[in-house]
Order: sequence, then structure tokens, then C-alpha cells
Amino acid sequence: METPAFMPVGTQATVKTLLPSEVRATGAQIVLANTYHLMLRPGLPTLQAAGGLHQFMGWNGPILTDSGGFQIFSLGGNVRVREEGVTFRSHIDGRALELTPEQAVALQLGWGSDILMPLDHLVGLPAETRTVQDAMDRTHRWLERAVIAFDEFGGTTSALFGICQGGMDEHLRRESAATLAEANVAGCAIGGLSVGEPKPVMAAMLEVVTPLLPLNKPRYLMGVGSPEDLWMGVARGVDLFDCVLPTRLARNGALFTPEGRVNIKNRRFAEVHAPLDETCDCEACQGFTAAYIHHLFRAREVLALRLASVHNLRFLAREMETIRHAIDNGSFSGAYRAFQDRYRPVGSNELSTESVVSLN
Amino acid sequence: METPAFMPVGTQATVKTLLPSEVRATGAQIVLANTYHLMLRPGLPTLQAAGGLHQFMGWNGPILTDSGGFQIFSLGGNVRVREEGVTFRSHIDGRALELTPEQAVALQLGWGSDILMPLDHLVGLPAETRTVQDAMDRTHRWLERAVIAFDEFGGTTSALFGICQGGMDEHLRRESAATLAEANVAGCAIGGLSVGEPKPVMAAMLEVVTPLLPLNKPRYLMGVGSPEDLWMGVARGVDLFDCVLPTRLARNGALFTPEGRVNIKNRRFAEVHAPLDETCDCEACQGFTAAYIHHLFRAREVLALRLASVHNLRFLAREMETIRHAIDNGSFSGAYRAFQDRYRPVGSNELSTESVVSLN
Repeated sequence: METPAFMPVGTQATVKTLLPSEVRATGAQIVLANTYHLMLRPGLPTLQAAGGLHQFMGWNGPILTDSGGFQIFSLGGNVRVREEGVTFRSHIDGRALELTPEQAVALQLGWGSDILMPLDHLVGLPAETRTVQDAMDRTHRWLERAVIAFDEFGGTTSALFGICQGGMDEHLRRESAATLAEANVAGCAIGGLSVGEPKPVMAAMLEVVTPLLPLNKPRYLMGVGSPEDLWMGVARGVDLFDCVLPTRLARNGALFTPEGRVNIKNRRFAEVHAPLDETCDCEACQGFTAAYIHHLFRAREVLALRLASVHNLRFLAREMETIRHAIDNGSFSGAYRAFQDRYRPVGSNELSTESVVSLN
Repeated sequence: METPAFMPVGTQATVKTLLPSEVRATGAQIVLANTYHLMLRPGLPTLQAAGGLHQFMGWNGPILTDSGGFQIFSLGGNVRVREEGVTFRSHIDGRALELTPEQAVALQLGWGSDILMPLDHLVGLPAETRTVQDAMDRTHRWLERAVIAFDEFGGTTSALFGICQGGMDEHLRRESAATLAEANVAGCAIGGLSVGEPKPVMAAMLEVVTPLLPLNKPRYLMGVGSPEDLWMGVARGVDLFDCVLPTRLARNGALFTPEGRVNIKNRRFAEVHAPLDETCDCEACQGFTAAYIHHLFRAREVLALRLASVHNLRFLAREMETIRHAIDNGSFSGAYRAFQDRYRPVGSNELSTESVVSLN
């Protein structure tokens, strides 16, 4: 796979609303899936009986799976962290469950993930430094156990990444990055960012972390997916990104254009009998007008969600193609300025308060 | 287009969950759209500005539109019939609206339907014979006005059908069929059946009607779409069918197989790591296992609705291919018996009480 790359998210073994062939057609070369969701449903035995996750979902490219940590800690209630691992309750049936660093590796290897993430400990922010440090230290200890488990369970065709934590604390971030740089991992993820902090804070944390990470291993900024953040991240040395943002926004009618984001449900699109984005080569813009997609959203038709998802994923893939091309040409700075000149991001206040509740 | 044929329904200018190319790939050569829904949203001016309904929805085959009558009378409250036409309220915003036989023709011609249906008057059953007769007589008078309007508004590249009504009354049905046989229309629709009556009653009504209809004009049985009813209808001389049944059932997980209908959400499919129907050449059966589709339904993923819709439409298209082939070979009776031997219909009680509430 080429990098830098944005990785579409297929939480439950499907990139929401799309066929694998459609995801591929947007230019995606790798997809994400979610360990927390997959372990609950359909579960490891089913995935193994199916011949693995790739076979089950019909995706023949690489798959990265997260560790489940982020989802478990996002559940809020009923989560207990011990040194051994984390106990929590299923959001589906309330079952009490446990996940250890070793189990997280075993699950991901079991269903055949290509890139595995180790279990990490996240804390809600703001939090006291001591709390953030404690979680970071545990993340580091859990990584050691994940590395041993990965070795032991025979991850020869897969890659295990490590995760940098440390909240918004510069010193902790440095310590975590240094630890990660020494770890026996194939790549370095940066977790715990894009969790509501102002964008300059995220950029500052990246500037602290990325110079300390090995140059010969990919860096993966977790949970980031707005066009402006992709450019910002690449400018700071990031290779991989993932986020539900483009597909979730799509299902709410928020579509990327070269000048910024628009909401296709807005009345002004009712009579736009032309593609939403004349420059876009996605299936939605090539085959349908903005007025039709507007109509589908107004009529609450499922096809609306599909066309919007295809468009937003293709938009991000094209941004990444532009970025890769610029890097190859040594013209990244100029390309970044050109992006900043044309693309007007949604304000960060607006970003954090906007309703992005999914239709499903 | 080849007949006999089943026509998928695209109520709001989209066959729910599917792209036009996917509908085409199921073998469909014509689709339906709904005048009532289209006149409310997006409305005739938008459809005309878009270059017509075909252009708007991206379907390059023929389109049949119903007259809106069925939907208006199905709304129940706030519907008033006068000789001039019918007044009703929009289910979207409560607006008071009117539809006359002339307007129904003008709308359908305006957005470029290939086959138009005239406004008809339906009554809920059971009803007194006098009430059924009154509605039937009005349907006949409205048809005369529709024929004049169709002539006047210049329907030279389109075709206007007539509709036979008469409830479950043999005498009225005969009278309506005879009237229709004399009318200046391109095809003969049979309306007001498949509205809850026992299947033998529907078959009996067809046996009364079809012998009276011209042999050189297509017969269209409205709102019928179960596999057993398609065979039954063709056996009685019907050429065209439409129904939301296959796509609505699909969105509820009810899938056709050569032996009968199954519900893919049933636990027994959780570990079926093989296509739902090994004999099926649809995109769902060719690319995915029953276990995966089961998982998508359990996880409430939109892709479930898509794969299920594709499968059910392809199933009906294949039944129609089998039927056409048998007719060409002069082996229809044998083929019908073979179908009856293998396919076990859902009992008619079950059919009428089963929840088919759409997911959207």
C-alpha cells in the first residue's frame, strides 16, 4: 500500500453502506475493523469458521484492526481497569467481558488482521497529570505483554504496532514516544488525540511526538479524518490515518468539496442539476446530480447514504493522492498552501458541537 | 422489453437501497415509479428541470408510473372524491392537494413516463356492491377523460394503460374488463386485487377478467410480486407485475430461495459459510455467505438491505426468465408443476399478518 494513506473504517466488518468493491473503487488500499465490535459480534469462532475476517467481509486488501481499547473506554460505565486487563460489559447484551493485552493480540491474529494494535489504556480529558501518566505507563507495560504474545502466538505474516499516549502533556508525550521508539513493533500509532482538544493543541502534540519516532517505521495518527487534519498530519510526518468522520458525515448529508464542506440537504441544492463537484470522479458525481442526491436525502432513501459515503471517501483518497504526488515531486509545501487557500474548514467549535448522529 | 416480466418498484425515483446499474444487473428491464410520491417530492418542475425522470434517477430503460390513485386512497383520512377528481392532504406537510384524471396524465407525460396509468377510484373492501360499482363506474369515466387528455397533451412516445376494477364481484369485474377491452388504451391493468383477499379469490377474479381482455395488448396485474403469484398470474394470461414485496421483504431479512422464503436473521444462518442459494447468480450469493448477510442484519448494517434486495429482485427475475423460456418451449405447464413441487409458499394467513414494516 502507498502512504500517506487514509484508511476507511469498517467497524463491524463492513464500511457502512458500501460493498468492498466500492470501497476499493474510491482508491482505498486498506480498511480498518474494530476488535471490540468483532469480538462481540460475530465473534472469533464465527470469523475463524468463515476463513478469517478478509474472507468473511470479502475484502482482499490489508486490514488493520484496533485493539478494542478505545471503544471499551468510550463506553464509560462499567469499565474496570486492573493490571491484568480491562473488564467491561457488552453494549449488546450486557454480558460481563474481559480483555487483556494477550487476548487482544490473540483475537486479531485469530481472525487474520494484517496490522494489529495493542490494548491501550485511555483516560477522559481533562484529567490530572498523575492519572494520565498512570494510564500511559500501563499502556507501555501492556505493549510489552502484547509484543511477547505476538511473538508467542506466531504473528509472522502480520505486523504489531505500538501506541503513543500521554494526553495533552508535552513531557508525557515525549516519554511515550521515546518508549515506543525502543519497542519491538512494526509501526507507531499516536493515540489519544482528536478527542475534542483545539486543533493547535493536536498539532503541537504531533510536533513533540513525531521527531522522536523511528524514521523507518510508519506513523499512524488514530481517529483523524478531516481534510485539513490529513494535510496537517502529513506535514508533521504522519503516514496513516483513520476515522469514521467521512462516512458518518456522509450519512448526515455533509459532503466534502474542494472549497469546503457543504450539506446536501440544504434547499439550495434542490435545483442543482449538475454534479455536486464537477472535478470529482466518484460514482456519485459521475452518475448523479446534486439535486438527485438532495432528493434522496429529503426522501430518506438509503441510496443517499451510499452515494454520499462514496463521495466523501473518494474525496479523501484524492486528497491523499494529491499529497503523495506532491511529496514525490518535492512540492508538498506549495501543495499544502494551495489546499489552505482553497479549502475552508468548518470552525473547530462548529466541529465539536455539530450533530453527527448516524442514521443507523 | 421481454414479457412476462416483473417490474421492480422505485417509489421515490429510486428502487430502495439500489443503484440503477444494480437494478439492471438483476435482469430488470423496466422499473416503476409513483406519481403520488413524485408529485409531492421532488415535484414536476424539478423533474422537468432535471431533464425528466429517467435523467433524474439515472435509469435508461422504460419507466411505468402509476397514477397516484392507490396511494391517495391508501392514505385513508382527508380524501374526498368528486367527479372532477380527488382532493387529499400531503403526508409530508399536510398541504391540501388535488388530482384529476387530466392532471395525472399531465404529470406523467411531464416527467417523461413511458407507460402511464390513469387515475382510478379504489374503495376499501369489504364494501357494498353499490359502492364498488360506483367507484368502478367513476374509474371508467375517469379513463375516458384520461384518454382524451393523453391525446391532447401529445403522448406520442408514451403509452396509456387502462385499469380494470370491480372489487371481488364477478359481474362487476366482467363489466369492467369489457369496458377496458373497448377503450383506446395500449395495455390493460388489473387493479384492486392482492389487497388482502384469499389467493383463490384473486385467481378466480383473474379467470373472469383475462379472457375478456384483448390478446394483442399487455395485461398488467398491479401490486403482485410473490413467486407463487407470478406463476399463477402468468398461467392466467398476465404479462406484467409489480410489487414492493421483494424489496420490502428483503429489508426485513426475508429472502427467496428455490424451496421457499427464509429469514436470514434466523440464528441457523449464523454459521452457514456458503451462499444462501448455491444456484443463484446474484451479487449477494456470488460474493458473500449467508453467515455474513446474517451478521450484517444482526449488526443493523445498511449493506444487509442492499444484498438482500439484490438477491430477491434477481430471484424474481430468474423466475420470470424460467417462465419466458418455458413459454417459448411450450413447456409452461410442466415448468409450473415443477415450481409448485419445489417452492413452498408462506401460508396466506401468514402472509397477511406477517410484519413487513420497512426499515426506512
